[in-house]
Amino acid sequence: MTKKPLEGIKVLDLTRVLAGPYCTMVLANLGAEIIKVERPGSGDDARAFGPFVNGESIYFVSINRGKKSIAVDLKSEEGKKLLLDLIKEVDVVTENYRPGTMEKLGLGYDVLKEVNPKIIYAAMSGFGHSGPYSQRAAYDMIVQGMGGIMSITGQPGGEPTRVGTSVGDITAGLFGAIGILSALYGRNLTGKGQKVDVAMLDGQLAILENAIARYTSTQEVPGPLGGRHPSITPFETFKTKDTWAILAAGNNALWAKFCKAVGREELIDDARFANNGDRTKNHDILKPILDEIFVQKTTAEWMELLNKVGVPASPINTVEDLFKDPQVEARHMLVEVEQPKVGKIKVAGNPIKLSTIPAEQEVPMDPAPSIGQHTEEILKSLLGMDEDGVKKLMDTKVIE
Amino acid sequence: MTKKPLEGIKVLDLTRVLAGPYCTMVLANLGAEIIKVERPGSGDDARAFGPFVNGESIYFVSINRGKKSIAVDLKSEEGKKLLLDLIKEVDVVTENYRPGTMEKLGLGYDVLKEVNPKIIYAAMSGFGHSGPYSQRAAYDMIVQGMGGIMSITGQPGGEPTRVGTSVGDITAGLFGAIGILSALYGRNLTGKGQKVDVAMLDGQLAILENAIARYTSTQEVPGPLGGRHPSITPFETFKTKDTWAILAAGNNALWAKFCKAVGREELIDDARFANNGDRTKNHDILKPILDEIFVQKTTAEWMELLNKVGVPASPINTVEDLFKDPQVEARHMLVEVEQPKVGKIKVAGNPIKLSTIPAEQEVPMDPAPSIGQHTEEILKSLLGMDEDGVKKLMDTKVIE
Repeated sequence: MTKKPLEGIKVLDLTRVLAGPYCTMVLANLGAEIIKVERPGSGDDARAFGPFVNGESIYFVSINRGKKSIAVDLKSEEGKKLLLDLIKEVDVVTENYRPGTMEKLGLGYDVLKEVNPKIIYAAMSGFGHSGPYSQRAAYDMIVQGMGGIMSITGQPGGEPTRVGTSVGDITAGLFGAIGILSALYGRNLTGKGQKVDVAMLDGQLAILENAIARYTSTQEVPGPLGGRHPSITPFETFKTKDTWAILAAGNNALWAKFCKAVGREELIDDARFANNGDRTKNHDILKPILDEIFVQKTTAEWMELLNKVGVPASPINTVEDLFKDPQVEARHMLVEVEQPKVGKIKVAGNPIKLSTIPAEQEVPMDPAPSIGQHTEEILKSLLGMDEDGVKKLMDTKVIE
Repeated sequence: MTKKPLEGIKVLDLTRVLAGPYCTMVLANLGAEIIKVERPGSGDDARAFGPFVNGESIYFVSINRGKKSIAVDLKSEEGKKLLLDLIKEVDVVTENYRPGTMEKLGLGYDVLKEVNPKIIYAAMSGFGHSGPYSQRAAYDMIVQGMGGIMSITGQPGGEPTRVGTSVGDITAGLFGAIGILSALYGRNLTGKGQKVDVAMLDGQLAILENAIARYTSTQEVPGPLGGRHPSITPFETFKTKDTWAILAAGNNALWAKFCKAVGREELIDDARFANNGDRTKNHDILKPILDEIFVQKTTAEWMELLNKVGVPASPINTVEDLFKDPQVEARHMLVEVEQPKVGKIKVAGNPIKLSTIPAEQEVPMDPAPSIGQHTEEILKSLLGMDEDGVKKLMDTKVIE
């Protein structure tokens, strides 16, 4: 078995639902040991979110595979003591409670760093641990609305459109992972941990890229542009004979290649479309010309033609299409895993391909845990507790 | 000056446009020194993408601030030799060429690791360094179409809708940064570098989350749902008296709070809306009831009411709104920087808040470089070259 880069790193993971669990999933893929601390009884809220197969949430399973679960009642004094004991044995602690919750439990960063000065404490919250909105509750949908991305996604003049995947949560999870990894690297130099504070709203600002550049340069407020890019042309969706196709001719060489491929060389020398700036400025004139070209062939015919000449083009794949795509298969981006009570399902693979990790080890093959599945194992191995100690805590419902 | 966690890490950055430069921007924020290797003459393609102020691309400036630029002709033998000399002095090399390009230049990973076995080589490409599509060109728009996210973003039955920000590039940049950081951490243990291979298409698969879970569970193909969440209700956009508002009552407690706040307690006990699963199943019945409630107040009135009672709600902010938002300001998520020839502009801040880094040091305050601005400085300091050596290479146009 190849050693993964984060092997040996232990993460005590108090996060629930998506942003935090996504972050620790990424770390698990890279070899970290994730010890999920769950509420006895109901566990991670995501266990109650569909879709379900035989009573198990596939949503939960897909982002928690390979993690261990220990169920501890953090509101009990003994539960808190247990958590503090565990803090001494781990490298990282993650939480995505509303700011102040950990402090109310007596488990704030100030307390934890006294117990273990090397601990890296990563908090992922809606609005962050500072500022006037800090105490407000947030979900993905809220930060998509507040963070500007919904104002530039959708059809011009149309109804508000949510990005179809939870980019608010996922982006926060990714920035959280980056923060944790940089703090781990820094700890090797200083011997000390630190606190990482990532807000979902901040993450949305950080991915607005050229929308901020446009506003700061021109004071024009960016709006939604349907299926096209704001400043590159043609970078857009076109109706074909049967469905849709995307053409992305991002520079003059590709534009010329495209014009040749469709037998319209005269467009190359047309001053209105001479370079990207002209094509963007004259989009209203160019669009109907391209529309007329694209309806003449099916999407499959376009793909064959444009791929052959090296002009970037694509269909709009559904999730079903991805399950049959040879590139997705070659890259192991849909991995079959076995989950107790469920059977075989497919989950997203690991997009970080490291040359030291064989493809079949890119994601942990262990299933997602049941609530408290590893409570006994962790307490014995990490804290050296004996059978009796475990039983006593079980009996008093401090652990499950 | 506080030491940032990646201080001392040197990155030789051959990337252009967005995915790669976004990755190295994240690393620069955390303290790494980024040495941008640019083509003499035109430099990074993004320098030619608008919006422009006084001839400078604000798009380029916003993601390349604080980096150094060295202009080297990598097609010349002396330029290649220079690059190999630099490889010995750095920790990380990044590139986002089409797979095979570095090999053609004689600068593939196999060559570079012979020169420096500790080097971490990170490639970000459209489809990755393996698989049948590997050699195809890709842009953000292409992987948004191929990767499934466009099939679940937009209005039901409506036109294809691009996510308004370049999530294809940005996600690849973030996974690239995570790969690099984990490889840096691993290098401390093994003494060896490795290759990190991140594909934009793979990144899109990795962020599909519950769309994959839904398909693998039910074989139903997820489609676009406009402004709502596929499996949580009410998690949606509603028309108000003046504009729009988002309500995200993600669990029964919040749903009950909302019903009380709007004086519709009877909905709490309505069996059709008893829990999230029922509310999602009966969305068609619930939607008109909520529509009627929301049109009665303005968005500002709704925000006041719902924030007071702690029900997650938000307006749909434009980029202009963000420039006035007190939370965005408190979190330093729009940072004013000074750029030569341009003056003061605002760029996105750093969403990774580390307790050891003061707010005013979260992003580098140095401007984005001009092409080759640091060529002489780098060659003298890293390679110990003298005035004459630099002049000779300048004269023969190997460097600029």
